[in-house]
Amino acid sequence: MADWNPALYTRFEDERTRPAAELLARVPLAAPRLAVDLGCGPGNSTALIAARYPDAAVIGLDTSPAMLESARARLPGLTFGLADAAAWTPERAPDLIYANAVLQWLPDHASLLPRLFGLLAPGGVLAVQMPDNLAEPTHRLMREVAASGPWAAAIGDPAVAGRLGRMLEPAAYYDLLAPHAAAVDVWRTAYHHPMADAAAIVEWVSATGLRPFLDPLDADGKAAFLAAYGRAIDAAYPARSDGRRLLAFPRMFIVARKAP
Amino acid sequence: MADWNPALYTRFEDERTRPAAELLARVPLAAPRLAVDLGCGPGNSTALIAARYPDAAVIGLDTSPAMLESARARLPGLTFGLADAAAWTPERAPDLIYANAVLQWLPDHASLLPRLFGLLAPGGVLAVQMPDNLAEPTHRLMREVAASGPWAAAIGDPAVAGRLGRMLEPAAYYDLLAPHAAAVDVWRTAYHHPMADAAAIVEWVSATGLRPFLDPLDADGKAAFLAAYGRAIDAAYPARSDGRRLLAFPRMFIVARKAP
Repeated sequence: MADWNPALYTRFEDERTRPAAELLARVPLAAPRLAVDLGCGPGNSTALIAARYPDAAVIGLDTSPAMLESARARLPGLTFGLADAAAWTPERAPDLIYANAVLQWLPDHASLLPRLFGLLAPGGVLAVQMPDNLAEPTHRLMREVAASGPWAAAIGDPAVAGRLGRMLEPAAYYDLLAPHAAAVDVWRTAYHHPMADAAAIVEWVSATGLRPFLDPLDADGKAAFLAAYGRAIDAAYPARSDGRRLLAFPRMFIVARKAP
Repeated sequence: MADWNPALYTRFEDERTRPAAELLARVPLAAPRLAVDLGCGPGNSTALIAARYPDAAVIGLDTSPAMLESARARLPGLTFGLADAAAWTPERAPDLIYANAVLQWLPDHASLLPRLFGLLAPGGVLAVQMPDNLAEPTHRLMREVAASGPWAAAIGDPAVAGRLGRMLEPAAYYDLLAPHAAAVDVWRTAYHHPMADAAAIVEWVSATGLRPFLDPLDADGKAAFLAAYGRAIDAAYPARSDGRRLLAFPRMFIVARKAP
C-alpha cells in the first residue's frame, strides 16, 4: 500500500481517540516502567499513554514513515521508531504492549496474539483494540462495488483487499490467551457515530479500510469507484430523525494480564 | 414480582458496576446541581455519582423497599426515596437523570425516553444503560425451558415473563431523542465475563432476568425449573481453554444532552 495520510486519518480524531482511551482505561497497571504503543499512527494514543503514565518510558512504533513524522512533530519528548508488529521483538520486555487499531491489518491472530503476550515482562499487560466492522455495510459495500465495476481486475479479489477472515470471535481470543494469563478481559463495543452526511462516511473509511481498494486505481478509476461507492453508502445509511447518518462501528477490545 | 434480593444482586457487583461506571464516564457534565439515580438498586451506581459530583445533590429512587434499605445503610449521607420511573415527575428539574439497568423493566420506550428527557433542566443529561441480552442463550433458554415443562401453565407466556419486544434498536433510540437534543451518543457493548462454572451463570440471572419465571413457582417447582435450566446453560456455554465459561452480556448505552 501507499504510505498513510496522517491529515486524513486525524480528520475523525475524536471518534478514533475514544476507543483508544477506553482501552487504556481498562489497563490494570499502576506504574509501568516501559510501555510500547504498537502501531502508534500519528501519536494520538501515544499521547494518552504518556499522560496516564508520566513516569514510564513510552515508545511509539509504526511501519509508516509519514505517521512517525507526524507523531514526532506532535510529541517531541517521546521516542518513535520504525517497526512492524508482525515481526517486532523488543530489546527489553515491556510492562505494557498497547496495540490500538493496528492488529486488524495483520494475518494469523492465532499466532500473533500469543506471541505478543509472550514478549511481556512478568505482570505485564497486552491491550488490543481492533475495528471489527468487516460485516458492516461500509465494508460489505466496498467488496460489492469492487466486484461489479470496470475496476474489478485492478483491485483483484475483494476478500483479500477487504481482509476477510482475519478477525476471530471474542471467545477465540479468550481461548488463545487465557491459559497463559492471570486474567483476560474481552469486550466488543459498537459505537453509533452521527455523521453529517454520506460523504463523511466515505471520507472516514477512505483513510483506512478503503485504501487497499483505491491504491491500485489511477485518478479516474479512484473517482469512478468513489462515486459508485458513495451512492451505495447513501442508500445503506438512511437519514435519521435529525437528518444525520448513523455510522455503526463495532470494535473488539482485549486486555490480558500476565502473572507477576 | 416479589421484592428484590440485594444480597444476591450484589453477588456480581464488580461486573454490574463496570457498565454503571462506563455510563457515568460519558456524561458530559462538569458540575450538575441535582442528579437523580433512577432505579438506584442497592446504591452502587449512586455511590459512583456522588463520588464524581461531590457538590451535587444526589437522590436515589427505586421501587424496591429492600433495595432502598440496603442503599441507605450503605450511603447514609445521601437521599433515597420510593418512586417508579414509569410515572415519576421530579419536584425540580434535574441536571442529570441517570438510569442504570432499570428501564429494560418498563414498557413503551418510545414514550418513556422522550418523557424522561423532557424532565431535564436546560443543559441537562439523560444517561441510560440497559441489559440487551434477551436474544442471548441465558434468556432464550429461560423461555424455552419455561414453555416445555410442568411449570409452563404457572409461568404463563414466556414472551411476557421474558419481557420480549421492549428493547429498540440503537438507531431507534437515536431517532427518538435527536430532534430534541443537542447531542445523542448511543453505543452497545457486549462484555464477555469469565464465570467459574455454569452454576455461576444461573446464579447471576437468578437475581434479575429469571425472577419473573421463578416467582410464580413453589419451592419444588423452582428447584425443578432451575435444574432443567442449569442443564441447558451447561450445554450452551461450553468450557473455554482455561475451564471457565464466558458469559456474553450485551448492554445498550444512551447519553443525550439537552441544549443549554
